[in-house]
Amino acid sequence: MVAPQFDLDEILAFAVALAREAGDMILKGQAKRFATSAVAATKANEVDLVTEVDKAVEAFILARITAAYPSHRFVGEETYEGEAITNEPTWIVDPIDGTTNFIHGYPLVATSIGLAVNGVPVLGVIYNPFLDQMYSAARGRGAFLNGTTRLPISGKPRALDLASALISVDIGNSRAEPELISRLDTFKTLSGRPGDGGKMVHSLRSVGCTSVNLCLVASGGQDMHWEIGGWPWDVCAGMCIISEAGGVTFGGKGSDLSGVEDAALLVGRRFLFVRAVALVEGEDALQTQRRLAREFYDTTEHIEL
Amino acid sequence: MVAPQFDLDEILAFAVALAREAGDMILKGQAKRFATSAVAATKANEVDLVTEVDKAVEAFILARITAAYPSHRFVGEETYEGEAITNEPTWIVDPIDGTTNFIHGYPLVATSIGLAVNGVPVLGVIYNPFLDQMYSAARGRGAFLNGTTRLPISGKPRALDLASALISVDIGNSRAEPELISRLDTFKTLSGRPGDGGKMVHSLRSVGCTSVNLCLVASGGQDMHWEIGGWPWDVCAGMCIISEAGGVTFGGKGSDLSGVEDAALLVGRRFLFVRAVALVEGEDALQTQRRLAREFYDTTEHIEL
Repeated sequence: MVAPQFDLDEILAFAVALAREAGDMILKGQAKRFATSAVAATKANEVDLVTEVDKAVEAFILARITAAYPSHRFVGEETYEGEAITNEPTWIVDPIDGTTNFIHGYPLVATSIGLAVNGVPVLGVIYNPFLDQMYSAARGRGAFLNGTTRLPISGKPRALDLASALISVDIGNSRAEPELISRLDTFKTLSGRPGDGGKMVHSLRSVGCTSVNLCLVASGGQDMHWEIGGWPWDVCAGMCIISEAGGVTFGGKGSDLSGVEDAALLVGRRFLFVRAVALVEGEDALQTQRRLAREFYDTTEHIEL
Repeated sequence: MVAPQFDLDEILAFAVALAREAGDMILKGQAKRFATSAVAATKANEVDLVTEVDKAVEAFILARITAAYPSHRFVGEETYEGEAITNEPTWIVDPIDGTTNFIHGYPLVATSIGLAVNGVPVLGVIYNPFLDQMYSAARGRGAFLNGTTRLPISGKPRALDLASALISVDIGNSRAEPELISRLDTFKTLSGRPGDGGKMVHSLRSVGCTSVNLCLVASGGQDMHWEIGGWPWDVCAGMCIISEAGGVTFGGKGSDLSGVEDAALLVGRRFLFVRAVALVEGEDALQTQRRLAREFYDTTEHIEL
């Protein structure tokens, strides 16, 4: 699937170095922003400063990629104008994932750099400069934290059913009804007691940064992430990291749960990410993941976007 | 209020070193648990291993405190038997805050070591060994991250009203109705659009570890934390860290919002923590914090425990 002229190891090293440089820009941008807001903060100029850092980081990443891989395409959150993702090698980038966190100084923020070929992620790097955590993966090479810790982190307990799962969700940005009510109804079914029709999952988490959530799924710290309304730059890098960690990306409620990463999945806006699980006799990992996904979708309402 | 024989600087250094040692025990316990669960995981023995680490860490902390300060009292989550918190110097300790996270290997877990005198927190140390983050404070000495970064971190944007706030909440452990429904109704009012009767806060976060949430409030990464059903060991250390960072601890809905840390507050089970804010003309920090708390409590239902 990957063209023979591709040297994924070389590209991975490039992307890791690039993400680290982007992280330095984010740290410096944040420091400058805080210094400014301490003096004269208005809501409008704070937002401007965020946008400025966001755009500058994306422009930097785009320039580096264009110089190194001039034939590749590029889709970035800040410069997206509705262009389709073709079969060509395409870098799919969110310069600052977790913008609300970045605005507040909440330390779960990441640069997400993915590469898709034929619309399927083959490489992903997610770097949180505030925690100095670098997650990386390339097709067939495994997924790692900080280059050396293989994901999932060995021996972490696994969820064998929904009730034993730790699941990340999000309230979303739009907050429009009925979408908000559908999300909250799903939270209620997931967390409620069985006698009240609930699934009583171990707990729900919400950190407001999709790429960080996907890294937590890949590392085994949580079992599932539910993403409604995500864009390719939110998930491209993380899909590769999850896949290389033995996890799987499914589409939305009603999708085929094939676990196959075709081009439609990346742009499908609705996702359920499930970590590696295969401890039940008579099930392989994908069968267990599918069973968990079916159980999850029993709890969710279809959500219009 | 603190007896003259107290050397808070010495006690703080003791508590910081103690928390770091506890953190090493937690890291080793987790590594051992993962090694075990990789071989033969059953739910029962996983829970046993968690309980074993939890109890061992508390016993270690108790032994060290008893040796160093034999006249002090001690209240710990694992050994609590309903004893009242008296006016005597009392160490109030959660060996592993965020047990569900610890079980799953979700990296937001902390040891929380507080000291109360006359039922009021005068010292707090919260250490997350997985992120190697040490938060500490003692009465009159300020609050710090890793000993050197003063809290709140300079220049972080501030919430001037509820709509501009980032707020942490939790689904809770009991999940019994009507408590669960009351919590979710509050989430809906907080997050919904004004036209639907909502407050449209910036966002909600949920990480399942009270002490980490209180450190995020103190550092300025989030603006409020809402805690229903918390015990003294969940909040004692964090209350001191927040107070020394210029923030405030309020009681539950209907409480006087005095901002005074009397003995009733620590054992009151219902809390609202608000970070330092004072940028509105004609308001001091406490007035702004009170206004945010009143606005918050307009959205919440009274929750029975």
